[in-house]
Amino acid sequence: MNTSPAPVPSPAITGTTITPVAFADPPLLNTVGVHEPFALRAIVQVHTDAGVTGLGETYGDAAHLARLELAGRAMIGADSFNTHELRVRIARALAADTTQGGHGMSGMVTGSATADRVLSPFDVASLDIQGKVLGMPVSALLGGAVRDSVDFSGYLFYKWAGHPGAEADRYGQALDPAGLVSQARWLVDTYGFSALKLKGGVFAPEAECEAIEALRAEFPDLPLRLDPNGAWTVETSVAVAERLSGVLEYLEDPTPGIEGMAEVRRRTSMPLATNMCVVSFADIPPAVAAGAVDVVLSDHHFWGGLRRSQMLGGIAETFGWGLSMHSNSHLGISLAAMVHLAAATPNVDYACDTHTPWKEPEDDVVVPGVLDLQDGAVAVPTGPGLGVELDEDALARLHEQYLSAGLRERDDTGYMRRFLPDFDPSPARW
Amino acid sequence: MNTSPAPVPSPAITGTTITPVAFADPPLLNTVGVHEPFALRAIVQVHTDAGVTGLGETYGDAAHLARLELAGRAMIGADSFNTHELRVRIARALAADTTQGGHGMSGMVTGSATADRVLSPFDVASLDIQGKVLGMPVSALLGGAVRDSVDFSGYLFYKWAGHPGAEADRYGQALDPAGLVSQARWLVDTYGFSALKLKGGVFAPEAECEAIEALRAEFPDLPLRLDPNGAWTVETSVAVAERLSGVLEYLEDPTPGIEGMAEVRRRTSMPLATNMCVVSFADIPPAVAAGAVDVVLSDHHFWGGLRRSQMLGGIAETFGWGLSMHSNSHLGISLAAMVHLAAATPNVDYACDTHTPWKEPEDDVVVPGVLDLQDGAVAVPTGPGLGVELDEDALARLHEQYLSAGLRERDDTGYMRRFLPDFDPSPARW
Repeated sequence: MNTSPAPVPSPAITGTTITPVAFADPPLLNTVGVHEPFALRAIVQVHTDAGVTGLGETYGDAAHLARLELAGRAMIGADSFNTHELRVRIARALAADTTQGGHGMSGMVTGSATADRVLSPFDVASLDIQGKVLGMPVSALLGGAVRDSVDFSGYLFYKWAGHPGAEADRYGQALDPAGLVSQARWLVDTYGFSALKLKGGVFAPEAECEAIEALRAEFPDLPLRLDPNGAWTVETSVAVAERLSGVLEYLEDPTPGIEGMAEVRRRTSMPLATNMCVVSFADIPPAVAAGAVDVVLSDHHFWGGLRRSQMLGGIAETFGWGLSMHSNSHLGISLAAMVHLAAATPNVDYACDTHTPWKEPEDDVVVPGVLDLQDGAVAVPTGPGLGVELDEDALARLHEQYLSAGLRERDDTGYMRRFLPDFDPSPARW
Repeated sequence: MNTSPAPVPSPAITGTTITPVAFADPPLLNTVGVHEPFALRAIVQVHTDAGVTGLGETYGDAAHLARLELAGRAMIGADSFNTHELRVRIARALAADTTQGGHGMSGMVTGSATADRVLSPFDVASLDIQGKVLGMPVSALLGGAVRDSVDFSGYLFYKWAGHPGAEADRYGQALDPAGLVSQARWLVDTYGFSALKLKGGVFAPEAECEAIEALRAEFPDLPLRLDPNGAWTVETSVAVAERLSGVLEYLEDPTPGIEGMAEVRRRTSMPLATNMCVVSFADIPPAVAAGAVDVVLSDHHFWGGLRRSQMLGGIAETFGWGLSMHSNSHLGISLAAMVHLAAATPNVDYACDTHTPWKEPEDDVVVPGVLDLQDGAVAVPTGPGLGVELDEDALARLHEQYLSAGLRERDDTGYMRRFLPDFDPSPARW
């Protein structure tokens, strides 16, 4: 005979606060340009009639912000625990929206599903509320953590010494193999990363292969990855795959599109990963049919939040895909969500990506101390919900920075062209 | 600023009690034989150091019981909330197990994954514990109910008037169209079902088509389904599909195997459903590649419990499959689990199957009153956990019945051959 309490009435959503913020970002290079001096994010607070507020974090582009406002209004009165209901309400609210853009990824990932992209921060906030009300960490709400900490990879970037017109930043210049090896040494020594990923597609493939080979010589035991964001043709991709066979644990998005990836995969034995050609559930059937990839990088920001990202994990398991995790520039709420998700997804097979080292520690909206990177890993927060606390003063400061910075959407290409007017961001240009 | 409680310590599992039970079952005919006088189930109780016990229900075949005992021992000390950890422990415990059989489905579904079949009742019990401790219904733990009640279909069977040597039962004989129409009338009038499913594969396809046509004439507006459990060749399946085109909402498992189903599907426009050729996650890639089905019937008893069945729902959504739900003879714990699952799976597109009307109301292990079938639907329980209470006296009585009945595995074919020694249960025999 069990003595059970009466069911907890789930708190109703009374309102949402969506706050765009900006934080300093170094001039990291990628195939469509260079990071602007500030990265944009939106901090989502979901308020309830229980007095508990849930947190979410997502892209800060203007079109996305407008959709978040639409969604936020649609969920007033909804059961804050019921993510299925939130999804229905958001789909309905967005049905009339025809705004373009707002993907927050500077044109590199544009095929993701709008409704899932908008749902994501509300799904995270819903789980945060639920965890806070029930006294459970989000990982437990997702079926339970299978690891106490989540491994991350050291994310290497080609970069300028500093933003043009500004002083050199603390990270230093990295425009050749020696610069990248030095950057990797800093990342490994400071954070203890045990895997490294290079953002490529910046220089000619020959130069990027040399960089990988230099990293291999310096770090003989660390798994290495290279991600040119679709900058290469099929022919180039095959040639690089042959050259770096046995050196890379996977090659990420060497060429654009499912068909191109599938052709590379047929012609090489190099494992291929993606977060560009499989970015929504609609991409999965054609990717399966074409045999396009070996590894999919999940990202709860475009896969509809944590529960739907777990579903992607199940699909990966079912189809024999490895599972890794993608990152954009982000703050602590996103990092906490990524850690809970990875902890409760048994088949995360690879160290996850994170931009954390490229952010100034004081530029965050969460109270510090919970999400430290040690030995290349972040301990899974054990407090209720996401286990992080919003710092209202920091939020106000980063919002002021958003207002004064004047950026309203991410535009790596436009920023690059201020300095190199002929810059060509075309995919498959090598 | 949120004021949150400290995290709830999840109760640890202190032991499990696995109780085989038997309950009266009428002589329902199917393609491999006839139901024996008793159906077998196992009732799983998972005990915790919080004094809360979770409930699960599964097959009662001897080989399955032995595996449940193995699994039960393996999970002592585990976090009762952590279904991911339970799955790891069960997989490990079963690694050395080489027992055959115990599928509980009389040879009709044999390809399901052993570890998922064994995990299922423990996954359900884990969610029941979690719900009871936290004061939340299981549907809320699964992301939230999207409906207040779950529709079921009226499950029609050819049947004898009673078990041989016993008196006629209260359900009456149904061996021809008139008998089935009369049975359907009883089901619709008593329970309010608004969809009907006929278990076929018993008589020649011609006779079963006539039965469906008679049902269509009597119930012009009710969706109808026919499930011969793979009794037909591809040619026969195509012919039946043509004849019943526009009459059935789907044809379920007309012929065995993914390749056969795919061939039927290529040659007809009839939607094809399955709970025989896609019964584990390993079956999904070949079924997708072959284009074998339009609708998959989930069943948490062989898909690894409720969370993994939701994952199947996500896969169905991703690949454009309809989603329905399969049933074996079951008691109230399983019914409660089915209702919570269907409530929290947005894309359940069809009325679910249930054997409930074929069970005497007093033959159950849960306290009555929560799971009544009204207007063809069961209201989603709102109490904590599964929302049903174990009746210990009823459990003891049904266990005594198990002991005295003497059955140790389901054997519809063996029972049929006692009366028809030459009975042929071969698939695709028409």
